[in-house]
Amino acid sequence: MKTLGYYNGKFGELDEMSIPMNDRVCWFGDGVYDAGLSRNYKIFALNEHIDRLFNSAGLLDIKVPVTKAELADLLQEMVNKMDTGNLFVYYQVTRGTGMRNHVFPEGKANLWIMLKPAEIADGTKPIKLITAEDTRFFHCNIKTLNLIPSVMAAEKAKRAGAEECVFYRPGKRVTECAHSNCHIIKDGKLITAPTDNLILPGIVRAHLIKACKKLEIPVSETPYTLDEMFDADEVLVTSSSKLCMYANELDGKPVGGKAPELLEKIRKEIMDEFMTATN
Amino acid sequence: MKTLGYYNGKFGELDEMSIPMNDRVCWFGDGVYDAGLSRNYKIFALNEHIDRLFNSAGLLDIKVPVTKAELADLLQEMVNKMDTGNLFVYYQVTRGTGMRNHVFPEGKANLWIMLKPAEIADGTKPIKLITAEDTRFFHCNIKTLNLIPSVMAAEKAKRAGAEECVFYRPGKRVTECAHSNCHIIKDGKLITAPTDNLILPGIVRAHLIKACKKLEIPVSETPYTLDEMFDADEVLVTSSSKLCMYANELDGKPVGGKAPELLEKIRKEIMDEFMTATN
Repeated sequence: MKTLGYYNGKFGELDEMSIPMNDRVCWFGDGVYDAGLSRNYKIFALNEHIDRLFNSAGLLDIKVPVTKAELADLLQEMVNKMDTGNLFVYYQVTRGTGMRNHVFPEGKANLWIMLKPAEIADGTKPIKLITAEDTRFFHCNIKTLNLIPSVMAAEKAKRAGAEECVFYRPGKRVTECAHSNCHIIKDGKLITAPTDNLILPGIVRAHLIKACKKLEIPVSETPYTLDEMFDADEVLVTSSSKLCMYANELDGKPVGGKAPELLEKIRKEIMDEFMTATN
Repeated sequence: MKTLGYYNGKFGELDEMSIPMNDRVCWFGDGVYDAGLSRNYKIFALNEHIDRLFNSAGLLDIKVPVTKAELADLLQEMVNKMDTGNLFVYYQVTRGTGMRNHVFPEGKANLWIMLKPAEIADGTKPIKLITAEDTRFFHCNIKTLNLIPSVMAAEKAKRAGAEECVFYRPGKRVTECAHSNCHIIKDGKLITAPTDNLILPGIVRAHLIKACKKLEIPVSETPYTLDEMFDADEVLVTSSSKLCMYANELDGKPVGGKAPELLEKIRKEIMDEFMTATN
């Protein structure tokens, strides 16, 4: 298969799959998701992603209709059916199906899976960033399907010729990007926003912190501002679909570039872990 | 028909309708909606609702794939096919269809319509309210399908034996309810939150203001607090699906009940307008 969709037991090419109009995703965006990469038919950091999916669901009182092990097995089975083993492996749970009504429905939640080819860059080429006020809700720690502000910011970045959009809250506090976490290096230290309700606890963010500790680079999980990002030695952007990237431009002004050796050590550590795990 | 769904030209009973998995509503909740009541096969305040739908869509750069007149005609045609003329008339536009990608897709937006029977109460029976912190995003003026916080609040209200949940922002400033606007009467005046980015500009809210002006009741569109709501003479809750209700309990404590004649005048004015328009 080139692409593969799954919905409550039904399989098919993604553009041929359909779902009931009364799935609550249609009226409320009422669900949670998670996603990552596979390489060589091996799904990277799968258990961490599945743990986070169950956590997101639990925070919204959604009961995932399979166990963690069943989900892992199903995902691997589906990956095995694909023409390529280099994939974006995406799965979500929506609260159920029923006539539109805000309160929770009777019946089980719905399980969705979506696979499509994905090749990743090695992170040696810099990216451009723009900024936007973070006008999202206060549940950014939950990976929900309520993503309109991220959609708008991603489109804004694209129109500006940039790859991502850095969000900031009042006081110019940087939170994260439209669909990535971001981090700065300053004076030999990694500084990254703490995992409160304003950011998603990124899996690659966690691997970045682990990599820094292994490389004896101090890590500070503290809020930082846009000014500090402009003044940083390096600016990093991490996500499960792009792993670890760095930026050389922010709102049209040059950023980073002052600690290239440290940056390269981190990039290599993360990329090596991914390649080793999926070989 | 008992219920009726529509999706890009296809019709059917709601629980038999399906939509493509790659509609962006499925991955991002990426769309806007509007809804109101019909009575005796007449849709109440339809042009106001359609105007608001187009405004919501415009604020998110979504191009509605029909004109306002075409949408009005299609809704009326569908209402005419129903077994009852007393309906909840709901319509939404999603940004399009395509492989999951945050940035906007090529191609046209999708038009959805959903009709189901709806009878309304006359507003003479009081309701119970609870409160919750308003943790939503800062685009509440746009009627989007990113409704998880409202879903959670509505469920919380139901579990508490209440009909609605009053949201408050920092400083205990009341914004609106999970799926209604709210208002207070104090010393002969109606006080209601201003139409900024923290509340939806309710159609019945606008009719309430118009009714008050007709009845020579002064209206102040200013922020007010939870304390002021507890201390109010009356507490009103308006929505397009329930019109005008009033509350006698807030978080288990009695509220309102101190200006019943004024309240009744307002209720009657709004209900009379609805009955006249739909007779």
